[in-house]
Amino acid sequence: MEVCQVLHMNRGRGEKSYAQNSSLQRKVISMTKPIAKEAITNLYRNTFPASLAIADLGCSSGPNTLYAVSELVKAVDEVRRKLGHQSPEYQVLLNDLPGNDFNAIFKSLAGFHEDMRKQMGDGSGPCFFAGVPGSFYGRLFRRKSLNFVYSSCGVMWLSQVPEGLEDNKGSICMVGKSPPSVVKAYYRQFQMDFSLFLKCRSEELVAGGRMVLNIYSRKSEDPSSKECSYMWDLLSVALNEMVVEGIIEEEKSDSFNIPSEAFKDGGYNAAKILRAAAEPMLVSHFGESIIDEVFSRLGDIVNRKSEEKTEIVIVTVSMTRKG
Amino acid sequence: MEVCQVLHMNRGRGEKSYAQNSSLQRKVISMTKPIAKEAITNLYRNTFPASLAIADLGCSSGPNTLYAVSELVKAVDEVRRKLGHQSPEYQVLLNDLPGNDFNAIFKSLAGFHEDMRKQMGDGSGPCFFAGVPGSFYGRLFRRKSLNFVYSSCGVMWLSQVPEGLEDNKGSICMVGKSPPSVVKAYYRQFQMDFSLFLKCRSEELVAGGRMVLNIYSRKSEDPSSKECSYMWDLLSVALNEMVVEGIIEEEKSDSFNIPSEAFKDGGYNAAKILRAAAEPMLVSHFGESIIDEVFSRLGDIVNRKSEEKTEIVIVTVSMTRKG
Repeated sequence: MEVCQVLHMNRGRGEKSYAQNSSLQRKVISMTKPIAKEAITNLYRNTFPASLAIADLGCSSGPNTLYAVSELVKAVDEVRRKLGHQSPEYQVLLNDLPGNDFNAIFKSLAGFHEDMRKQMGDGSGPCFFAGVPGSFYGRLFRRKSLNFVYSSCGVMWLSQVPEGLEDNKGSICMVGKSPPSVVKAYYRQFQMDFSLFLKCRSEELVAGGRMVLNIYSRKSEDPSSKECSYMWDLLSVALNEMVVEGIIEEEKSDSFNIPSEAFKDGGYNAAKILRAAAEPMLVSHFGESIIDEVFSRLGDIVNRKSEEKTEIVIVTVSMTRKG
Repeated sequence: MEVCQVLHMNRGRGEKSYAQNSSLQRKVISMTKPIAKEAITNLYRNTFPASLAIADLGCSSGPNTLYAVSELVKAVDEVRRKLGHQSPEYQVLLNDLPGNDFNAIFKSLAGFHEDMRKQMGDGSGPCFFAGVPGSFYGRLFRRKSLNFVYSSCGVMWLSQVPEGLEDNKGSICMVGKSPPSVVKAYYRQFQMDFSLFLKCRSEELVAGGRMVLNIYSRKSEDPSSKECSYMWDLLSVALNEMVVEGIIEEEKSDSFNIPSEAFKDGGYNAAKILRAAAEPMLVSHFGESIIDEVFSRLGDIVNRKSEEKTEIVIVTVSMTRKG
């Protein structure tokens, strides 16, 4: 396993659309593409598989769901053309949690096939798609059935809120003022989860198979650095305001924590992005009734802070399954 | 390839719920189970695969979607226990058209896993699920990736309405009064489709892999026998009534045909079942506005006919992929 790149992206205030999250994810995939491309073309050149199974873990559902996969397939196709080889068959396995909108992805596939045919011509593929629902912190695929695993900005989500966060009152994740016990609890959970993730993938990958992960990260060595929790921190501020005004019970707010090590985004409409990620967790903890109020306040807070320029740090890791 | 069983089921008027289609499909799967069970346990005993990939083609979405698969897995589990073997891993590939509600299936999987654990104990599985959108009249899976293919009452749907039905005025499928050209057109389409189906599956199945198909059929040698088109025939009657009353243009009605060789069901609420199957086709041909009227009339017609006792004929075919 080698860490290939630490990517710093400065984000200005130019991006204002609702699709900001999408455009951020697209930017991450696009900027880290050389690493993924190198990994999959090396894999192809070393093994010339008649069929090539690619899994995208945490594929989500939206305009970027098929972006990484299409780039991977095009990279292989370019090499096999240069070498004058027949195209391998592609098996694309799109994974996300069972609540993801797989129906929408499946309905978009006809257009995807059309685009790929236009771009790559008739001699390429075929490309078979499957949706695979479930947590990637467990086995998802048959033994030795994958050639390539890809995941962009998925593994910063933990499998669950860590145990032992009782002393994290007033915050919903690791922040600067969190006591060491809280930092340790998040760290332990991440270690357990990531070990399990690696173990599962090592069972699913064929010998020589490759894996490329984009992971939200930080430059600071301090695990509770503000750098990692900027947006969650602002959500804390909104919830705390509501505690002070008696809208939310303090006890209820203290027991709410986010199962994420890092989530950071800045700019004008970040509240909307965070809402997509956090709403299900907030609803299940506090109930429906406070949701609009929380996000209206968060929007105000984000707007007040929008002069601050934020920076995204992505670590891309490329691994090979030993034979 | 051997035809294993011709199943006759007499249907009374006892079943009145909306889930009649489900209960019919469940009955078909249940009554033909010995054949599927024999095929998959033979497969297991002959090859002892470390992982076993089962595809269910035309799985639909509803209470019976996982019924066949759970019976197949339980059959294998029973044998491997008797033999004292470790459980294979199961890969279950659920296929239907991209418009199928895969989200609903995926959300039901947690309950399925729970049930299976209760029934089979801890030593069984794991069982990995994937949804595979697309027509089974084309390749869906990687080369040599399937051990077992199952399909219950799916392949009577043709890939498209046959060409050459211009002389089928007043009917929407093969019926007694259809001219020979129409019968021939349906037959030709079925031959093309089924050949393609077999070719695709032969590429996807491993050597020694098995396939079991339940197919709606008929006892009569006459391909336009009323036996095959009973329910479609009643839909024709409803459409023709509306032509006579000037609600639908005759030309529009004459050019509507169903891409199915056989569909028959009887009893009280059959109109609702047919609606699920026919509504998308009717909407795309006639538009939304006439739909309620069509099915209200069909309901009346079915009720008038409900004294007639109908019979379902199922042919079950079991095949082995040669090595």
